[in-house]
Amino acid sequence: MNDFIFQNTTKVYFGKDQLCHLGEEIRQRGSKVLMAYGGGSIKRIGLYDKIMAELNRAGVTVFELPGVEPNPRHTTVNKGAALCRAEGIDAVLAVGGGSTIDCCKAVAAAAFYEGDVWDLVTGKAPITNALPIFAVPTIASTGSEMDKSCVISNTDTEQKLGMAGNLLRPAVSFLDPTNTYSVSRFQTACGGFDIMSHFFDCNYFANTEKYDLQDGVIESILRTVVKSLPVALEKPDDYQARASLMWAASWALNSFCGSGMKMAASCHGMEHELSACYDLTHGLGLAILTPRWMEFLLKRDDTVAPDFAKFGVNVMGCAPASDAKEGAVAAIEALKDFLYKDLGLCSTLTEAGIDDGRLSEMARRACKGGTINGYRVLTPDDVEKIYRMCL
Amino acid sequence: MNDFIFQNTTKVYFGKDQLCHLGEEIRQRGSKVLMAYGGGSIKRIGLYDKIMAELNRAGVTVFELPGVEPNPRHTTVNKGAALCRAEGIDAVLAVGGGSTIDCCKAVAAAAFYEGDVWDLVTGKAPITNALPIFAVPTIASTGSEMDKSCVISNTDTEQKLGMAGNLLRPAVSFLDPTNTYSVSRFQTACGGFDIMSHFFDCNYFANTEKYDLQDGVIESILRTVVKSLPVALEKPDDYQARASLMWAASWALNSFCGSGMKMAASCHGMEHELSACYDLTHGLGLAILTPRWMEFLLKRDDTVAPDFAKFGVNVMGCAPASDAKEGAVAAIEALKDFLYKDLGLCSTLTEAGIDDGRLSEMARRACKGGTINGYRVLTPDDVEKIYRMCL
Repeated sequence: MNDFIFQNTTKVYFGKDQLCHLGEEIRQRGSKVLMAYGGGSIKRIGLYDKIMAELNRAGVTVFELPGVEPNPRHTTVNKGAALCRAEGIDAVLAVGGGSTIDCCKAVAAAAFYEGDVWDLVTGKAPITNALPIFAVPTIASTGSEMDKSCVISNTDTEQKLGMAGNLLRPAVSFLDPTNTYSVSRFQTACGGFDIMSHFFDCNYFANTEKYDLQDGVIESILRTVVKSLPVALEKPDDYQARASLMWAASWALNSFCGSGMKMAASCHGMEHELSACYDLTHGLGLAILTPRWMEFLLKRDDTVAPDFAKFGVNVMGCAPASDAKEGAVAAIEALKDFLYKDLGLCSTLTEAGIDDGRLSEMARRACKGGTINGYRVLTPDDVEKIYRMCL
Repeated sequence: MNDFIFQNTTKVYFGKDQLCHLGEEIRQRGSKVLMAYGGGSIKRIGLYDKIMAELNRAGVTVFELPGVEPNPRHTTVNKGAALCRAEGIDAVLAVGGGSTIDCCKAVAAAAFYEGDVWDLVTGKAPITNALPIFAVPTIASTGSEMDKSCVISNTDTEQKLGMAGNLLRPAVSFLDPTNTYSVSRFQTACGGFDIMSHFFDCNYFANTEKYDLQDGVIESILRTVVKSLPVALEKPDDYQARASLMWAASWALNSFCGSGMKMAASCHGMEHELSACYDLTHGLGLAILTPRWMEFLLKRDDTVAPDFAKFGVNVMGCAPASDAKEGAVAAIEALKDFLYKDLGLCSTLTEAGIDDGRLSEMARRACKGGTINGYRVLTPDDVEKIYRMCL
């Protein structure tokens, strides 16, 4: 096992009756909070009112940053950071999906930087400090509520880039599965596959030595997602299914499952270009890309077959095959059936409204001037071929 | 899933080249450390010298508390706490097994209490503060390096009691699998089964609703222990096996695997009486007790059969049986074979030098004046019967 450092300090309140602790937790850090949220769904489900009542009860003054975009813009972050500085905000509170939490993380850091947050994202300036971050996620997906990174989009440069650091880890997150009951079938499915893809990209399909302990844990969490996701689609208020998805999302990126293994992201890099250029829902992009990425690798390189076959048996419930390649093909088919039939996601970029006009440009950008050094090395030419397989 | 709060702040440096960070981590908290250790094995393996060199390099003044007992005594804790107060110690450092770490945790809390630490253990006085705790475990076993509890023995009253609190969680732990290479076959086996027993007692055999996610994770970690333990016995310097055991130990009690589930300890309570009265090695006591506890329950109550059968198939590698009871019997046999043949542990209390003289008294004490309300309720009479089955 490779050497590693593990620490995850986020305090998680999990369950349906935990929001009563929000006020006391924020109050410990100050009296002024900036609350960020997205398009208003939190008002529709009554969460906005519940949070306001809780914060009022605790004597916390609330400033608002509404309208955070699904792929949060650096301009929105700058607006939030300016508000923090102007009002002397003590903490930031994200109520919403991964995008809202990501936006808040960037705001928390940018509050201590006078310039454009894009300087922090691109590494032109370092993250020196951050306001304490609180999160109330409303979808099981990114795991941002328990990890130390965020992804910010710049529509001027058409870039979607990640930023990470221990200062960006939420101090406290409130995971209430009932807050995800109203998430649509489509978003539930996309979020669920995003969870799975985090495991794939971070370590399950890793081009390094693998470890029984972490590998077995990942497979068991993946199995839980595969089992729970169709239940949540069928019965949106199934508490167990929603709770399992929510806890799985947090554990995909909280550093345990990847302990000792090197991150080997492939599909996330390819997908970020799609959502940067076309504002595609991240999980949908991943769902379209992943099986084609597997097919591309399998055709090129037999060495991936045992890993894919193992995934088929241990996660997708395929029968063991005598031949690894046969098992790998079955695994990919099982994944496609799961995504495009069970979850009902669309299976091509064409259906998602994306044509071949910018594939070559996106492929180059996904490789950032070199290659994607993930599970297997991908050149811009490889990435373009994978994009084309998705049309 | 039941509501729960999860937070584990311990920073873990995992690997064979991480001790170089010890000095800088302690230095952040002060300049005087109390280092506790046991019988001197840390000198034999060269760890004592390595740590001293590292602390000297960082300018940390070291005070020593050698001779911590395998079941650490409250008198040793009192001695350490007095030293902390007298010398103005800034931090405590445990180098050794779970007993040494447990002792240090109690010292860290007792340093802020002028009276006898037994008052803190028995709850007569509250834990108000604790010195920062550092741990360098030398055996994969208790998981004390990442949990918030400790177990202290009082030989005057012949009691072995636990004490817990977030203040007792180590600030930083250094998990170096090579430090466990010299652990004897016997202690490796005992420590390994202690890990498994933590899962059994904390939540795997739980008398509450179970959750797919946590349950699957527990089974995959248990499988890793079952696979790694014989490898480590065969080849004591097998890095992967030692690393898997070490990481498994930490995760058994770090609160994740039991999130949302109620702790339901049965065997630990019964075993603590054996080690309190006879100074028996904890893991050996558990290895003798556990299969008999399972047999006792199975004979009394068919409802345990499906859980035990599932354990057999998913952890011990038994073939699925058509009948749950048959599967449960096979699971218990597989566990016995593993413990008494593969690991070579002795299978009876008689072999361990314990006769029936105090069984009734220990049974009463294990039930603390009532019953053990674990996976299944056990009366003092039940416990005595289980003890007798172990003779």
